[in-house]
Amino acid sequence: MDTRRAEAFSDGVFAVAITVLVFNLLEISLGQQHPYRDLAHAWAQYFAYVVSFLTIGIMWMNHHTIFAHITRVDRPVLVLNLLLLMGVVAIPFPTALVAENLHQPAGAAAAVSYGLVMILISIGFTGLWIYVVTHAEKLGGQAQPEALRRSIPGFTGGLLVYVAGTVIAAVGLPVAALIIYGVLAVYYLFEHLPAPAGEA
Amino acid sequence: MDTRRAEAFSDGVFAVAITVLVFNLLEISLGQQHPYRDLAHAWAQYFAYVVSFLTIGIMWMNHHTIFAHITRVDRPVLVLNLLLLMGVVAIPFPTALVAENLHQPAGAAAAVSYGLVMILISIGFTGLWIYVVTHAEKLGGQAQPEALRRSIPGFTGGLLVYVAGTVIAAVGLPVAALIIYGVLAVYYLFEHLPAPAGEA
Amino acid sequence: MDTRRAEAFSDGVFAVAITVLVFNLLEISLGQQHPYRDLAHAWAQYFAYVVSFLTIGIMWMNHHTIFAHITRVDRPVLVLNLLLLMGVVAIPFPTALVAENLHQPAGAAAAVSYGLVMILISIGFTGLWIYVVTHAEKLGGQAQPEALRRSIPGFTGGLLVYVAGTVIAAVGLPVAALIIYGVLAVYYLFEHLPAPAGEA
Amino acid sequence: MDTRRAEAFSDGVFAVAITVLVFNLLEISLGQQHPYRDLAHAWAQYFAYVVSFLTIGIMWMNHHTIFAHITRVDRPVLVLNLLLLMGVVAIPFPTALVAENLHQPAGAAAAVSYGLVMILISIGFTGLWIYVVTHAEKLGGQAQPEALRRSIPGFTGGLLVYVAGTVIAAVGLPVAALIIYGVLAVYYLFEHLPAPAGEA
Repeated sequence: MDTRRAEAFSDGVFAVAITVLVFNLLEISLGQQHPYRDLAHAWAQYFAYVVSFLTIGIMWMNHHTIFAHITRVDRPVLVLNLLLLMGVVAIPFPTALVAENLHQPAGAAAAVSYGLVMILISIGFTGLWIYVVTHAEKLGGQAQPEALRRSIPGFTGGLLVYVAGTVIAAVGLPVAALIIYGVLAVYYLFEHLPAPAGEA
Repeated sequence: MDTRRAEAFSDGVFAVAITVLVFNLLEISLGQQHPYRDLAHAWAQYFAYVVSFLTIGIMWMNHHTIFAHITRVDRPVLVLNLLLLMGVVAIPFPTALVAENLHQPAGAAAAVSYGLVMILISIGFTGLWIYVVTHAEKLGGQAQPEALRRSIPGFTGGLLVYVAGTVIAAVGLPVAALIIYGVLAVYYLFEHLPAPAGEA
Repeated sequence: MDTRRAEAFSDGVFAVAITVLVFNLLEISLGQQHPYRDLAHAWAQYFAYVVSFLTIGIMWMNHHTIFAHITRVDRPVLVLNLLLLMGVVAIPFPTALVAENLHQPAGAAAAVSYGLVMILISIGFTGLWIYVVTHAEKLGGQAQPEALRRSIPGFTGGLLVYVAGTVIAAVGLPVAALIIYGVLAVYYLFEHLPAPAGEA
Repeated sequence: MDTRRAEAFSDGVFAVAITVLVFNLLEISLGQQHPYRDLAHAWAQYFAYVVSFLTIGIMWMNHHTIFAHITRVDRPVLVLNLLLLMGVVAIPFPTALVAENLHQPAGAAAAVSYGLVMILISIGFTGLWIYVVTHAEKLGGQAQPEALRRSIPGFTGGLLVYVAGTVIAAVGLPVAALIIYGVLAVYYLFEHLPAPAGEA
């Protein structure tokens, strides 16, 4: 199979998953007494929306970069891609838990669930990337052991930060954990996987 | 009509249907007393999510394989494809029933409804595949009676397993039925329709 | 603008709109006393789902046929297309009203709203089709006054049937109206707009 | 990265966001006493649906026009595009607030939130457009300082009208504000960004 249809399907999944985030905002309703205050009090919803939106957006960019290294997909790539998408599609779930519970006792558990989903996705990305780089020739790309070596710090670093955020959430600081997740997303906006030669 | 736009529409439907599965997870909410226990107790939701996600993902792969055999679509292909998608889009419905009722008396009926939807989809796939292979030349592909013959065990086997799962659910073992549906999905991750000559 | 991106956007809208129909099914829940009876009693939900699914599917096919006549789009085509999609996206709304109220006094009003949306969409299709055929040369297609003339009975017939269904609903026969909408959908599965020369 | 996959992802996001608007309509339910009156009383829902549908549709057209100026995207374009989409995806949220509260005291706050989201999106479009036009050569397009200069009135005008609508909503005239947003959408249906040379 060439990469075209696998990318089209993945793009569709990313596009729907990122848009599902708005359903958390749709939970916000205004009372008739203090509607402006109600709008302002929903800041945890907006914050969770922004963090998850940027996170899924960056994952989409990294996904594109991975597939830009190859021209064909085989069955293991499709299966690894499916497992990865299974994590991405789940993101609105811990996002909703965080948005609803950030100020409450359950906020810690919510932020832990957010971190766990991110850790699973990080592992999924690492697995797909290792497979793609080590099977580049079979997949119609160029073997790039160099790309693999150079990308190790980025993957390991991201994973460690998510582990740290999850631990920080577990000890009872969910807002700090969410800020860490957000900072990581902003960091990755500008720092990313090596692109194939000749691509920006 | 060439296959491009029919594939694009189908890819979109598969992508949305697979993402709709997260709405079942969005039903989970945390109490403030035992939030970690609430997260753990929702395992039926996660299980149903994983089984249906893998199932729709595999159906998408098989759908691609079927369309890779041809270069044009005619009206019967479009109609058969639409009937097939009507089943795929419905999957989040029995998934939700199973996730909500797995531990309760209604779990058996829920798992039966899951199996019935899968049986309908299996019949839809078989019908589309038979039409495509037997009309391959008209559809710009190569006649492949061999591919049809080789695929019979796979289709029949899948259908029989879904029938068996439905019966097992009906006699009151919905968890066993869901495990069977999940094992079948994992099996099909690696065992699949014959690809056209020259494709992996 | 060439037709590619307008088609891609429209395909996406059709794909999401057709998948949104499953949210009506997600409203169905099972009691623990008589779950099989609950499944059976939801037949109005299934019926409405099937009718609307086929209807949107056929509209997608007709949409493709219209765009197959041209190779470029101009601003009026985009605006007419947007108005048409505004009707298509609304379909899950009267579908939900019909599914919830078919057996109740409000069923008549629900089936009337369904018919009105269909009438608006029919007018939208007619407008887009007339514009495309009469501006074919500007849009990179071939002028086909013949295609326009041949398509008049189909458009007029469909519109009249929707008007008839709406009237039948208004006098208090919503089930009969829904059957009429369904029969029309099945009829259009096999009877359709003239394709451009050389296309099936 | 060429523009193809960025456009495909953006098209998907626009398509889902515009379809999510129907979920506001799905909130409407019919009583059994006066179902026709209930349908008629929901006019604020229909009005908000139409305004937001046209608005997102026009944004999609403008998005296409911007990307038609270039053939490659770089990291800043992707980030700016992501920020823009973050606003577009949020549109169903203020739309729901407006639809639910238009006749009530909270209607003013709802229409203010609508205006604020539109102002943010306008700024996002302006930023993306300035970047694209000033980096056209790097992005594989033609430098068009002329296009930038000609587009200033349109961008500034749109932004000012949204500011005016927000102010009018804030002083307690939410219906007037919604009419202004709607008129602006209709105006932009026919008045738009300069297309690249050779495109309509």
